Amino acid sequence: MSTIQQPLSEKEKYALAVDPVRSMDEERAKANFNIRELTYLLDGGEKSTSLKERFMAELERDPLFKMDDFHDLTKSELRERTMEKFRSLLHYLQNESVDIFRKRMEVISMVDPGFWTRFGVHYGLFVGALQSNATAGQFGYWLERGALSLSKLIGCFAMTEIGHGSNVPGLETTATFDEAADQFIIHTPTLTATKWWIGGAAHSATHAAVFAQLIVKGKKYGTKCFVVPLRDPSTYNTLPGINIGDIGKKMGRDGIDNGYIQFTNVRIPRGYMLQKHTKVSRTGEVQEPKLQQLTYGALLQGRVAMVVDSGNVSKKALSIAIRYAAVRRQFANSKAGGIETKLLDYPIHQRRLMPLLAQTFAMLLTGSEMTEMYNNMMGRLESAKEGDKDLDEVIEMLKETHSTSAGLKAFCTWNCLSTIEQCRQSCGGHGYSAYTGLAGMYQDFAVQCTWEGDNTILTLQAGRYLISSYREAMKGKKLSPGVGYLNNLDSLIGKKCQVSSLDAILDPKVIIEGWQVVCANVVKNAALEFEACCKRGLDVDDAYEQCSQSRLYAAKLHSYGYLFNRFADAVKKIDGQLQKVLLDVCLLYGLYTIEENAGAFLQYEYFTPQQMEFVRAKVNVYCKAVRDQAIPLVDSFNLSDYVINSPLGCKDGNVYVKYFAQVQRQNPQGEHPYFDRLIKPLIHRDMDGGDIEDEQAGLESEDDEE
Amino acid sequence: MSTIQQPLSEKEKYALAVDPVRSMDEERAKANFNIRELTYLLDGGEKSTSLKERFMAELERDPLFKMDDFHDLTKSELRERTMEKFRSLLHYLQNESVDIFRKRMEVISMVDPGFWTRFGVHYGLFVGALQSNATAGQFGYWLERGALSLSKLIGCFAMTEIGHGSNVPGLETTATFDEAADQFIIHTPTLTATKWWIGGAAHSATHAAVFAQLIVKGKKYGTKCFVVPLRDPSTYNTLPGINIGDIGKKMGRDGIDNGYIQFTNVRIPRGYMLQKHTKVSRTGEVQEPKLQQLTYGALLQGRVAMVVDSGNVSKKALSIAIRYAAVRRQFANSKAGGIETKLLDYPIHQRRLMPLLAQTFAMLLTGSEMTEMYNNMMGRLESAKEGDKDLDEVIEMLKETHSTSAGLKAFCTWNCLSTIEQCRQSCGGHGYSAYTGLAGMYQDFAVQCTWEGDNTILTLQAGRYLISSYREAMKGKKLSPGVGYLNNLDSLIGKKCQVSSLDAILDPKVIIEGWQVVCANVVKNAALEFEACCKRGLDVDDAYEQCSQSRLYAAKLHSYGYLFNRFADAVKKIDGQLQKVLLDVCLLYGLYTIEENAGAFLQYEYFTPQQMEFVRAKVNVYCKAVRDQAIPLVDSFNLSDYVINSPLGCKDGNVYVKYFAQVQRQNPQGEHPYFDRLIKPLIHRDMDGGDIEDEQAGLESEDDEE
Repeated sequence: MSTIQQPLSEKEKYALAVDPVRSMDEERAKANFNIRELTYLLDGGEKSTSLKERFMAELERDPLFKMDDFHDLTKSELRERTMEKFRSLLHYLQNESVDIFRKRMEVISMVDPGFWTRFGVHYGLFVGALQSNATAGQFGYWLERGALSLSKLIGCFAMTEIGHGSNVPGLETTATFDEAADQFIIHTPTLTATKWWIGGAAHSATHAAVFAQLIVKGKKYGTKCFVVPLRDPSTYNTLPGINIGDIGKKMGRDGIDNGYIQFTNVRIPRGYMLQKHTKVSRTGEVQEPKLQQLTYGALLQGRVAMVVDSGNVSKKALSIAIRYAAVRRQFANSKAGGIETKLLDYPIHQRRLMPLLAQTFAMLLTGSEMTEMYNNMMGRLESAKEGDKDLDEVIEMLKETHSTSAGLKAFCTWNCLSTIEQCRQSCGGHGYSAYTGLAGMYQDFAVQCTWEGDNTILTLQAGRYLISSYREAMKGKKLSPGVGYLNNLDSLIGKKCQVSSLDAILDPKVIIEGWQVVCANVVKNAALEFEACCKRGLDVDDAYEQCSQSRLYAAKLHSYGYLFNRFADAVKKIDGQLQKVLLDVCLLYGLYTIEENAGAFLQYEYFTPQQMEFVRAKVNVYCKAVRDQAIPLVDSFNLSDYVINSPLGCKDGNVYVKYFAQVQRQNPQGEHPYFDRLIKPLIHRDMDGGDIEDEQAGLESEDDEE
Repeated sequence: MSTIQQPLSEKEKYALAVDPVRSMDEERAKANFNIRELTYLLDGGEKSTSLKERFMAELERDPLFKMDDFHDLTKSELRERTMEKFRSLLHYLQNESVDIFRKRMEVISMVDPGFWTRFGVHYGLFVGALQSNATAGQFGYWLERGALSLSKLIGCFAMTEIGHGSNVPGLETTATFDEAADQFIIHTPTLTATKWWIGGAAHSATHAAVFAQLIVKGKKYGTKCFVVPLRDPSTYNTLPGINIGDIGKKMGRDGIDNGYIQFTNVRIPRGYMLQKHTKVSRTGEVQEPKLQQLTYGALLQGRVAMVVDSGNVSKKALSIAIRYAAVRRQFANSKAGGIETKLLDYPIHQRRLMPLLAQTFAMLLTGSEMTEMYNNMMGRLESAKEGDKDLDEVIEMLKETHSTSAGLKAFCTWNCLSTIEQCRQSCGGHGYSAYTGLAGMYQDFAVQCTWEGDNTILTLQAGRYLISSYREAMKGKKLSPGVGYLNNLDSLIGKKCQVSSLDAILDPKVIIEGWQVVCANVVKNAALEFEACCKRGLDVDDAYEQCSQSRLYAAKLHSYGYLFNRFADAVKKIDGQLQKVLLDVCLLYGLYTIEENAGAFLQYEYFTPQQMEFVRAKVNVYCKAVRDQAIPLVDSFNLSDYVINSPLGCKDGNVYVKYFAQVQRQNPQGEHPYFDRLIKPLIHRDMDGGDIEDEQAGLESEDDEE
């Protein structure tokens, strides 16, 4: 029963040639590897992929997680909507294992980062503060009081103050022990001591984990953590002495009710000070811990999570930008019968997006490895006891991971923020619409460069660690693998790239060596600069400040090299077609990072100017190679249209129809909102008679008087 | 009658030492030049400064321009508020000269860029389209119909379509001549032809300047401009055949009512086609113009304005970040009696902000010069007649300025966007608050990288011009000053920096030469790459596409060099203390830009690695020198607290008091917005009895059965 096929008219032929859905199909057909296999690799196995797919489907059908009207909610609506979602999540939390639930949260963080944070304030920060700082008995007490079930208790985490962020030891809030009453008095002595940015304080929390200066018998013992009740759970009225305010509108994540808190001599029982580390007895004796480092576990977890998050958010941004570029056409090509060219076919567009795609793979593979390392380390830390040999080793490892993760957190969040913005700009004007998703993604993500350790400060910490590792290596200490190249300074300093042909540069081994040579040089320079400052008579801290630019530079280059290493390692472990495509992506990442840091590679003469020209030219070549597989690679990220939540990033490529429908749905036409009040009086005003200048107001003209 | 002076307690002494207002006073006292004199220089004279001060004061007292609640307005409130401001502005427009009014608008653009754009859509784009495209008679007609007085007429500019942005010749909307009726039929043939992003379409405009494909007797003549009535001015109902919708929420500038427009066979009189260039007679004869270029005047003006705007917005961002850094303290310094250190005293913070300050001066001085050049050129163009020798010269100049301004528009808007973000991050957590102003500034400014020519495309145009200039120079043509260095290729290619001592590098002449050498090399490389592509058989357009990365690179470096040149020139013309301080700023800009592009300077061996190390070290030194005068330099920008609209940027330095007051004013405490509906049922739910798992529902246990 076939119908007779009519020949297509010219118009129909043209429409078919530029049809976005067909354009997307063409791209998808190019896949020369098994996409599913790559998804499993990125997710950490088939089981994990199935789980993620289940979570995506469950979220999509949950009416509380409706996302398509998200960009038009006012701040108040968003706050309310965000609180509403607690209900669904509690349901899952009580019905599945922590591991499974954590994976669910990872998916949620991509869908609604504001909700993820607000929920995380209680379960991550508040409960985390209890875990890190409470004795077993205290932890049990707060669990009984509802810390997990949210029974009459929602917590917040009150660390930062309006006048103090990164400098935690400098916090001004005081916790003074009143021995007579066996209580602590929590107090905000100045305006700058006001607790600020406290997520959940404005509308959610009944209790706060408050960081304050412990003062016992007139002596200060530094910053400790105290649980302070804020509100009556039956009315949500604030308790006496508690002053809470909403800190209002932010750049993004407006679903979180950040607030400020001022305490005026608020009394809490002695037992509300969390005493796992420092203890205060009934008679005011203070027992301080031996191992201060152990409290950093929670910070570390946050940083690793942000490396993973940077990879995930980059996935989402690139899904939008690359899929759009595969169907968007611009400027007619006379050789293609006047059909406009796909953005993705422009060499310059490949240059804009393909290196970012390669970088995303580097971050994803590094993030997986760090998560594993973190879990391993925390497991050992839990089971180790004071005095154990294993404990010493774990603490050494903790120190190292602390520095590596500091640098990577900074590097990856900066990279991701910049990736989002570059993806947004690559979508042209449509990137400026809220509905295409990248603008909001930028606004939500931006805070990651500041919280859980300001990126600049973290990078400087990583740089300080590199300098001290260098100095230890000079004394003969064998360093851990991540900085192991500093044990080979003699062979690295002054080393040049020795290849028989230019093409031999296209080998991960050569690139790894190049990064080692460059990093060895910049770390050495930073260390020498530091030592020169010390010799000039500066103390250690001032000397480190003076060479901060060199520390920053060393840490940045070290992070580049570290990511490339992890990427190259991961590619080695794979085989077949998958290895082939990932090797292209890996080489693109390597070549691109060298080009970006050409100054360093030329400065230390690892590459000659001629070799560097070759690298530049090859970046173009690998951009083109990766572009060929760009849609299959993005497909391997396996994010559903619901998660991507952008008409430009829809899987089928039908971008204009979906974009138009979304805009229409959000902005139904109706009465003109202010025609009568504002426009009518403006454009229908009396143009001739009303102006004061034209009125003589009865005054005789000079002519009349004459 | 003096009171007895009590000695200060330790606490009082500390409070005084860290007092932000006192900290600011200290900084201001360091001024070693006449601040007022610098303000005059930047503003273009004392008279211009007085005018700006008057405008700032007049805006501040105008209730319609109230700005302190701005960040808490919803999109609808913002739209309405923005429309309301038209009233004040019309008042000024009718009472002062165009020049004065333009200066007023420049101040307004810094206060409320959304309003500036919405107002500019009519007076800049719509009226501009009439000026560029209407005959004298047609222009008179539309003036009589209210184009200047807004009498029953508000215009919008309908160029872009959902499927077409940069490719104006590819627009799909059609304007078909119906000879019988002496009318044009304006029509939207497809979804992708929908006019999109049209500022003012959603709620403001009665008429549109529509760009559509002219079709006469079946023949296409390319994109022309037509005036199309959209709404009945007495009711604001859309006219038959007009479908208008709101395109809703954007990344920023939500005060503008961008919309979409679809035309269904809308008829307009033949005279509504603007026929300054192409003419269509009563009988359908089409007369095409000889000089297509002349229509670009309006685009050019927009680009120059954006260079100026980039300088102005950077001023505002840096006023906030640098003033905050002068009073914000972080980490106690034991050598200063435990007093925390000002951010501005950290070498790394100087590194973050001082180069951006230097770059801002470079943009401001370049912007002034380009404005002058533009006015000069347009004056000549107006007075020249077809066939005049002067016209040919002006057209050549237009071509050159068109390219230079394309590159600078892109370069400066990218720089400014990045400056805002770096300023925001340098304020730590407070940079994420809407009230501190930088977040919104980013969101508003971001669109400048896309509109009036996508930055990447503009940069490529500039690169194309450099290649063709190079090729003309090779043929012996004497080039205009901006690219004049390409006439000296023989002496520049291969030239090394020859200085008797490293310190001799610290001379603008050396830096200018360095940029010329580097630019000559990269332009040459791009041209050779282009020629190689042509030899391989590619046509000109394809060859240009293939070498687009080299074009981009060449244009970027050329823009760096151009800005440094303009800066160095301006410094030469000044004397005394002012020259001394600006020379430091200028050298910092030069050294920093070399460091940023170290790869190029080493690649072409203008500097040796050793010289480059010296440059890196000197950037630190000049950062410190400029930091010393940072507050006086920022003061010279002369923006009032009202214009800056950020508590962190207030002139007196009283940041915490003002920030706290602002947050409190915006978010008055009241009833909890959703305690009863959402929180109470959650935290007071039945924890024990209600769960289904615990209920046996009457089923006998196995024990009972045994």
